[in-house]
Amino acid sequence: MVNYTAMANGGLAQIRPYQAGKPIEEVKRELGLEHVVKLASNENPYGISPRALKACTEMLANCHYYPDSHGFYLKQKLHEKFGFDPDCITLGDGSNELINLIFQTFVNDKVNVIIPELSFVVYNMEATIANAGVKTIPLKNYTVDLDAVLAAIDDRTRMIVLTNPGNPTGTAVPEKKLHAFVKKVPHEVLVVLDEAYNEFQGKDFVHSTDWLSECPNLIVCRTFSKAYGLAGLRIGYMLSNKEIASLINRLRAPFNVNAVAQSAALATLDDDAYLNNVIEKNAAERERYAAYCAKKGLKMIPSKTNFVAIDFGREVKNLYEALLKKGLIVRPMGGYGLDTILRISIGTHEENSLLFAALDELV
Amino acid sequence: MVNYTAMANGGLAQIRPYQAGKPIEEVKRELGLEHVVKLASNENPYGISPRALKACTEMLANCHYYPDSHGFYLKQKLHEKFGFDPDCITLGDGSNELINLIFQTFVNDKVNVIIPELSFVVYNMEATIANAGVKTIPLKNYTVDLDAVLAAIDDRTRMIVLTNPGNPTGTAVPEKKLHAFVKKVPHEVLVVLDEAYNEFQGKDFVHSTDWLSECPNLIVCRTFSKAYGLAGLRIGYMLSNKEIASLINRLRAPFNVNAVAQSAALATLDDDAYLNNVIEKNAAERERYAAYCAKKGLKMIPSKTNFVAIDFGREVKNLYEALLKKGLIVRPMGGYGLDTILRISIGTHEENSLLFAALDELV
Repeated sequence: MVNYTAMANGGLAQIRPYQAGKPIEEVKRELGLEHVVKLASNENPYGISPRALKACTEMLANCHYYPDSHGFYLKQKLHEKFGFDPDCITLGDGSNELINLIFQTFVNDKVNVIIPELSFVVYNMEATIANAGVKTIPLKNYTVDLDAVLAAIDDRTRMIVLTNPGNPTGTAVPEKKLHAFVKKVPHEVLVVLDEAYNEFQGKDFVHSTDWLSECPNLIVCRTFSKAYGLAGLRIGYMLSNKEIASLINRLRAPFNVNAVAQSAALATLDDDAYLNNVIEKNAAERERYAAYCAKKGLKMIPSKTNFVAIDFGREVKNLYEALLKKGLIVRPMGGYGLDTILRISIGTHEENSLLFAALDELV
Repeated sequence: MVNYTAMANGGLAQIRPYQAGKPIEEVKRELGLEHVVKLASNENPYGISPRALKACTEMLANCHYYPDSHGFYLKQKLHEKFGFDPDCITLGDGSNELINLIFQTFVNDKVNVIIPELSFVVYNMEATIANAGVKTIPLKNYTVDLDAVLAAIDDRTRMIVLTNPGNPTGTAVPEKKLHAFVKKVPHEVLVVLDEAYNEFQGKDFVHSTDWLSECPNLIVCRTFSKAYGLAGLRIGYMLSNKEIASLINRLRAPFNVNAVAQSAALATLDDDAYLNNVIEKNAAERERYAAYCAKKGLKMIPSKTNFVAIDFGREVKNLYEALLKKGLIVRPMGGYGLDTILRISIGTHEENSLLFAALDELV
């Protein structure tokens, strides 16, 4: 038998598959449960926007046709709403695809990538696939240490990848500090800001896209999977200079973003009431988590996102399993070496109450 | 200004973007037309299946959750219906994504890829991105010359890519002949069969997946975009040995296939009446095209697919433009060096009648 694994390019054979949060159906199937609440993948618990639902339903009648390869109307809407130049936008099958395409375009075995400790695991997977060097920068109090990131840049550094706010930490670098940092990075080094959770910062939203003209090395990735509530449909976008957008647009498959996702994103961008409601409710529930943890004497990392990382001060494997048996899916962080931390996505008021009640019993 | 294009890996900077068939909305916009018929992208003209429509509508209520990363239920259904081992299946954001992932995994600057002349343009783009050698094998009477493909295999050959039936030719290699060919290829050389149009062969459907156990180097790509009518939703699948499936599954983004597409594919696999109706109607309309071309003295390449390539014996650029002005989008084949050929997707009975009437006026 031929060894096909040995024929694989780069470091692909070395990576382990991504472990997704357990799907609700899977937990129901495996544990024979009827009611299951998933607080594991930082999803929006409020359902998709009513406008998106209507737009999607209408679009289904045309889904025997390919989607618009260029996302004309969605790019127009992003232009109208945020002032983005359509030629600087690249649409992706979720921002995850865009991150993969950025690595595929610019990262190889002759360069290194700077990634803060406790970042979204996909960055390290992509660097491994590309056989690139990785400089892991320790956090300071669960927050990205920007000075250490700057100091780590060397002649082989191709890219810095920052999730802001961070996952799985939930912490954020504020706008002014991040802006000052980005301006200090040499233009030969790309700065990728993965802003999946930016909207949940509310008034502290970081307007990083305003820096694109002064920083040609800046790439901003945003998603409709979180605050916009469209995780199941897969759509995100990337802003960069036109040259980089042209490269990534050539690399992506021509029909990478499905038609339903395009129409849903378009409709949700027209539904400010939906977005504001999600952000407000999430902030209020986040306060409840902080109050609950304070009351119980649990350490919660201050969060700017739609999830909280709670340090239980002891190994949480059993607690995770016990919650699962009660139909509550959360996310153990053992994969990040954080054996005492559970990452819990902030659900609806009722879902969070269920979780608190379960923790009252178990902790 | 830094030259970001020069920083791009492989041959990416050399490729030109894929030219998709013009979307209906774009033609309406540009030409101010109200009624436009698209016969340009080999889409299914009959709409998605009623069962799929129902399943999709229901799934939208859950699209704030991520899709199942492993496509559990869809793989089970493919197992039940076709006997495929779920561990041998990889799901893709259309089969186009799977083709890209296969190239990304196995093709590099030290190997070559054998691609018959007049193949789906994406294969050559991917080979260019990978800086791989390409051996282009001339067709014989618009059909793949399998002996020439075998003769072209050398020590550096990593992969053979065959679309069967072919696009843009529409011709097919029959089952027995293809099977004999695949068995002759050394196991170190991957054989990728892109079978997007297989279903339209009706009783001549090629059961290539039956050869997977005897041919570990075989990879079969299938799609739900054509006969299954789900082009806008983006879903396809790949069958291979488990080792290759494991590699590609590690490379793909964890949520590459959206939830609506998964439920639509599942529902359409349960709707044999829909599929059979599409195949029968397409075959009947294909006969109409053959009869029309015979009557008009036009050369039509015999088709096993849902499109026909017609040689008008003179440059077709003006004809293409004239049809566009009448609201009929077809596909000029100049990009393939076929300046006298138009590729026309087979529409509904009414759509084809409109095209015949327009050709009667123009030719």
